[in-house]
Amino acid sequence: VIGLDDRGLTLGDGLFETLLVLDGALQAAPEHLARMAQGCDVIGLPRPDPDQALRLMQAAITTAGLQTGRAAVRLTLTAGAGGRGLERPPTPAPRLFATAAPSPLPQGPARLAVSAVRRNAGSPASRLKTLSYLDNVLARRQARAAGADEALMLNGAGEVACASAANLFWLQDGRLHTPALECGVLAGVMRAKVMIAAARCGLAVIEAHAGPEALAAAEGLFLTNSLIGVRPVANLDGRPLPATDLVESLRGEVG
Amino acid sequence: VIGLDDRGLTLGDGLFETLLVLDGALQAAPEHLARMAQGCDVIGLPRPDPDQALRLMQAAITTAGLQTGRAAVRLTLTAGAGGRGLERPPTPAPRLFATAAPSPLPQGPARLAVSAVRRNAGSPASRLKTLSYLDNVLARRQARAAGADEALMLNGAGEVACASAANLFWLQDGRLHTPALECGVLAGVMRAKVMIAAARCGLAVIEAHAGPEALAAAEGLFLTNSLIGVRPVANLDGRPLPATDLVESLRGEVG
Repeated sequence: VIGLDDRGLTLGDGLFETLLVLDGALQAAPEHLARMAQGCDVIGLPRPDPDQALRLMQAAITTAGLQTGRAAVRLTLTAGAGGRGLERPPTPAPRLFATAAPSPLPQGPARLAVSAVRRNAGSPASRLKTLSYLDNVLARRQARAAGADEALMLNGAGEVACASAANLFWLQDGRLHTPALECGVLAGVMRAKVMIAAARCGLAVIEAHAGPEALAAAEGLFLTNSLIGVRPVANLDGRPLPATDLVESLRGEVG
Repeated sequence: VIGLDDRGLTLGDGLFETLLVLDGALQAAPEHLARMAQGCDVIGLPRPDPDQALRLMQAAITTAGLQTGRAAVRLTLTAGAGGRGLERPPTPAPRLFATAAPSPLPQGPARLAVSAVRRNAGSPASRLKTLSYLDNVLARRQARAAGADEALMLNGAGEVACASAANLFWLQDGRLHTPALECGVLAGVMRAKVMIAAARCGLAVIEAHAGPEALAAAEGLFLTNSLIGVRPVANLDGRPLPATDLVESLRGEVG
């Protein structure tokens, strides 16, 4: 439980990470902890102690009885108790906690729907996993109402950014494309792994500024995040998209 | 205290209102409760019971011993317990709570600094008081670091939107201007009162799409919110702005 004056609760002032757990083992923990530390630098909070974070996450797995199979751990850092108003206390005392839950792989390819909710490329928060995630909640909600699984989010300039909880890749002219971080995109841990794996396969990767018309011409589209790994997209706003066996190759590469 | 799985805490999924309290009496409570109800419709949460909201706010004032003088009550609505992921449970059970604190009037006119953090006019959340308020926190932080009191936020298109915790007005050519809601602006309770008061004084009010150059040419600039009422702005990015006695007239009108 957490106090009613916690700034994570009152203002969305904080960060989180979501890690895959396989048979009790945290996956890519150093990458996730490094990203949270960098996020703290951006929003001006002290970095959490990585050893404490690891202990909390391991304890959450044990408490939830998730030492076997697939699970997800969420590590949450709030700016701590806040008093009234937007300004943090002179010496913030952040709170760190972890929760764990089962995380089955989603079944089959994703159906995407373009959301009217835009990514705010003009805020550093658009490149971080913050506790101010309502835009993502609203985008996902729209996608579900449209009969899709996931939202495709554009930024204010109309450029393709990401899904509500995943990064986006597409194949075109034999090259892999993913929106540039400046489009308002999280530097996904799995995004980075896929970019490295693609380069290892001899596939050029372009960090792109592109409109949604680029996706209509794509030879294959897929989503990535730490929990789903690489997930193909079957259609966009109801229009079928071509499948590519690249997804299977990359899945093998990113492990 | 609130559970670690509350979606207000984990995802900023919820809304809040901040009300002025004078000698124990809630100011403009119907307007604030109506705005929260409309916000619930936009983000898809059930509306709170207004009687329960009033009871919670009165209890918060009493508990904090704030029956005399100036105080602020904050009413917070979260989407309730959430489980994992962006999607709400089929039947959300929102949580409603209120806190109260003293709220002295800020001393003197405000000094504004333009923030690099942009308002996301492309999200409905930019027109609501949501628990996803990190952009506002970051904008205020930048303003304070620049030696100012408050941030001037532009939207992604470079239009003037608002301060980090106030609406903005400026006087030009004998007419009052305030950014249009579509610029990514909260429909402030005090903003509405000022617009009505200005009309009563025979002053035309324009809901504007304007760049920051419009402010440089203004004959007076002020901020409004429920706690500060009407507060003049003395300078913008260190450049002095002309004072106007309109501020005093409007203060009298909005009571």
